[in-house]
Amino acid sequence: MRIGELSKASGVSTPSIKFYLREGLLPKGEATGHNQAQYDDSHLRRLRLIRALIEVGGLSIASARDVIAALDDSNLGTHKILGVAQHTAARGIAFCDEESKRVALTEVRAMLERLGWRVGPDNPAVHAAAEVVGALRQLGHGDIADRLEDYARALKPVAELDMAVLASRPDIDSMAETVVVGNVLGDELISALRHLAQTDRSAEFFSAEPGSNR
Amino acid sequence: MRIGELSKASGVSTPSIKFYLREGLLPKGEATGHNQAQYDDSHLRRLRLIRALIEVGGLSIASARDVIAALDDSNLGTHKILGVAQHTAARGIAFCDEESKRVALTEVRAMLERLGWRVGPDNPAVHAAAEVVGALRQLGHGDIADRLEDYARALKPVAELDMAVLASRPDIDSMAETVVVGNVLGDELISALRHLAQTDRSAEFFSAEPGSNR
Repeated sequence: MRIGELSKASGVSTPSIKFYLREGLLPKGEATGHNQAQYDDSHLRRLRLIRALIEVGGLSIASARDVIAALDDSNLGTHKILGVAQHTAARGIAFCDEESKRVALTEVRAMLERLGWRVGPDNPAVHAAAEVVGALRQLGHGDIADRLEDYARALKPVAELDMAVLASRPDIDSMAETVVVGNVLGDELISALRHLAQTDRSAEFFSAEPGSNR
Repeated sequence: MRIGELSKASGVSTPSIKFYLREGLLPKGEATGHNQAQYDDSHLRRLRLIRALIEVGGLSIASARDVIAALDDSNLGTHKILGVAQHTAARGIAFCDEESKRVALTEVRAMLERLGWRVGPDNPAVHAAAEVVGALRQLGHGDIADRLEDYARALKPVAELDMAVLASRPDIDSMAETVVVGNVLGDELISALRHLAQTDRSAEFFSAEPGSNR
């Protein structure tokens, strides 16, 4: 298809497509004449991924390029590529001071060892978990942090569902797209569903009290 | 204790305490003389809650006042008070267009009915879930939205853990504080632990490939 048709099929404007081509995010089409090129389904899939990275994931052009470079590196296995996609979507917010973080990092790594989870010691999610554990202890909510392993175990079935979705994707571009969309929007979904479940549990728990409907 | 001691014990500066007193977030102390008052543990607990609402939850003074007014209304049951605390911490981000949201709302409400969860049809978490479901369908990830009920069921044990933490709190101020901290920081923790679990599952899933360690 021509660039105009690619724009129509993808919902991405022609100027944006030209920008992604110049930035090296989208591979060039097959030249068919002066200033003309043909694009195919691989370009359509790649545009979906670019939109997911930039519009949903809020990635910079440079970070999006890193994900795409990993995709195009045939020496990397699927697990590593998905790791790159996940890492770039990590927010890296600091919630606690350095000393609390240092203690919490040891705690999170020890938990991963006990669980036997295959996660590198400096995976961004290890640091993200440590920031929250440190902040909980600083704020006097250490008992929530004490239940870290219970929470981790409770989330394993959620990750199994995530993997089932991922496994149904036909190619590595759509897998990477799913990692980004599934983490950014997925986190929001998990949060909303957890709050719904809390509301139901709370209704049951405090149902003997007056004024407790919903 | 005097205001200076309250400041020391809470870690909140005296000017901030005076501000919270003026704004009606913190109840007045017992007057012991001209321009002097005594404060007790209830003020300390309330200050912890105020900090959680404003600094962790990012609530405006007005929203924090709503939570506190609910706490002080003895006609409201615990479930309702916790609902107020949860609602004010809801972010209310729009992820999809209105038509997608309308369809998704029906979908989320039907799921709640099937699950028998006691959640009002306009609970903020219902709207938050619908925004994400709508966005997933708009982005061509409807198959993730199709698993909504599976995800909801998988999150019930997480909410059970949340309730166990809540039930261990000695009074309604600290329960409300836990709802806010547990939802804001808790969401970050759940997100990090889910990503850790995904990494482990992905390592197992793609372990036959080259370059797949962590």
